[in-house]
Amino acid sequence: MSLDRLIEKIAEKQNPTVAGLDPKLDYIPSYIKESCFEKYGKTLEGASNALLQFNKGLIDSLCDIVPAVKPQAAYYEMYGWQGVKALYETIAYAKSKGMFVMTDGKRNDIGTTMQAYASAHLGTTDIEGGEISAFGADALTVNGYLGSDGINPLLDICKNSDKGIFVLVKTSNPSSGELQDMQLSATGESVYEHMGKMCEKWGEQVMGKYGYSAVGAVVGATYPLQLKELREKLPSTFFLVPGYGAQGGGAQDVKNAFDKNGLGAVINSSRGIMCAWKKQNADEKDFALCAREEALRMKEDIKSAIGEISLK
Amino acid sequence: MSLDRLIEKIAEKQNPTVAGLDPKLDYIPSYIKESCFEKYGKTLEGASNALLQFNKGLIDSLCDIVPAVKPQAAYYEMYGWQGVKALYETIAYAKSKGMFVMTDGKRNDIGTTMQAYASAHLGTTDIEGGEISAFGADALTVNGYLGSDGINPLLDICKNSDKGIFVLVKTSNPSSGELQDMQLSATGESVYEHMGKMCEKWGEQVMGKYGYSAVGAVVGATYPLQLKELREKLPSTFFLVPGYGAQGGGAQDVKNAFDKNGLGAVINSSRGIMCAWKKQNADEKDFALCAREEALRMKEDIKSAIGEISLK
Repeated sequence: MSLDRLIEKIAEKQNPTVAGLDPKLDYIPSYIKESCFEKYGKTLEGASNALLQFNKGLIDSLCDIVPAVKPQAAYYEMYGWQGVKALYETIAYAKSKGMFVMTDGKRNDIGTTMQAYASAHLGTTDIEGGEISAFGADALTVNGYLGSDGINPLLDICKNSDKGIFVLVKTSNPSSGELQDMQLSATGESVYEHMGKMCEKWGEQVMGKYGYSAVGAVVGATYPLQLKELREKLPSTFFLVPGYGAQGGGAQDVKNAFDKNGLGAVINSSRGIMCAWKKQNADEKDFALCAREEALRMKEDIKSAIGEISLK
Repeated sequence: MSLDRLIEKIAEKQNPTVAGLDPKLDYIPSYIKESCFEKYGKTLEGASNALLQFNKGLIDSLCDIVPAVKPQAAYYEMYGWQGVKALYETIAYAKSKGMFVMTDGKRNDIGTTMQAYASAHLGTTDIEGGEISAFGADALTVNGYLGSDGINPLLDICKNSDKGIFVLVKTSNPSSGELQDMQLSATGESVYEHMGKMCEKWGEQVMGKYGYSAVGAVVGATYPLQLKELREKLPSTFFLVPGYGAQGGGAQDVKNAFDKNGLGAVINSSRGIMCAWKKQNADEKDFALCAREEALRMKEDIKSAIGEISLK
């Protein structure tokens, strides 16, 4: 009932990072695309099979050094139900290789509808008494704009399993401040601080053994001061930090997300890892090797800023 | 580049309502489920086929009197990619029957990721120069917590098509106030008013010919005073109003969402229509007939409060 499994994998690999799997067709080597289009045509099915093969190559190359993957649902939905099938197969493959899987779906709704999302992505779906796992991720990103009615159905699943969630608090994009930075009259806090405190409160029900709850927060690497401030104010909330690399955040920026034991955060890189072969002008058949090299470089970069990761 | 097509269908049918298609297995007559489980087993595929058959029955029975349907993505995702395929097929079927389709997905993200959602649900997906429609809805509900970076990619599609979006402003659930009702220091406005004004501003780029833009707002029937206040403050923003019926809102509550011409809002009913056959203890084979009767009752109920709907 917490993010302990993620935390243990991070400590075991001494690597507080997650590889984003946002596979645009542009990122995929031609030889993979061509073989899929030859087999299935230039169709949603053909494209979806290319995504899956690309992902499997990345997962094979990363699974012994990177603790987690984060498939972004949008890049699968864009290829229709065929793409969503590739998402399902990607999740299953990553789990079979021992990786922790965080589906980045930013889902949100209320009551029985949110229960349906919770069943879909983290729990199981009841079909006439049989329980079937629809997607089976380990964690899901969610949007808390609707308040507790949107979070409680997820907590019900977190309480009875080792699943977790990450609630959007301060996002990495330039316009995140249009709402998130607005100050509230009642407390003088910003909207994102208010959301962060709600995370801390929701987390009380689902605390883990390393001081962090099952309710994490998304806080962008592009706002290092806010990262530091939130790390202090939200001691039980684990952070998922996007924005490293392609969006401009560096190791000194994300350092603020960690506690004194080097815990408290997992840093995401998507394009940096997926497109390493393009950036290095490497042979496209070396895409997985280049991804591994970049993942190792990123690990060392962040480790040099935070030091040893310790569960004690 | 607006919600004009929805508005015209509402005026033509003199019916400002949308039927929510949130097909839980519990809502589906046994004879449909049994035939699907016999064919496909008690599997995600079997359940998904039952959803689709149920939806088709409802669409056949409603398409000449109700202008729009709103499938809720969560209830399809819960049955895995097989359920998402049923969502795709439901959308295609409803469109073939002339209905306006609003996918209730509350999607949100930024930049190229939000572009991917926009392509998935409203636009087309580029596969090596060919443009393929992945889901092909007419409108999508979205969550604006991330600001303009999350909305602009949708506006790009709305500008070049007759598609629209509905942004969550004031949701119908009891805990919606935890964030949405908080007052902002800068203006004295609530978070939901601030979000509403952003909708009005985003809409300026995509105005239609009936005074409403392509950027609608979700405002719950359960908060009639806020509905009235927002109708006055957001004159160009069309409202999608959940919470009628099962959640407690009545015709007098939703009346406030409309302008003097009976335009300005579409009222959703999901369970009320889908489960009419259960509520009436009717023969399960009459589920579609009961749905039609309830849809007609709802139409008359709301029309009695708002009068004639006029495009002038």
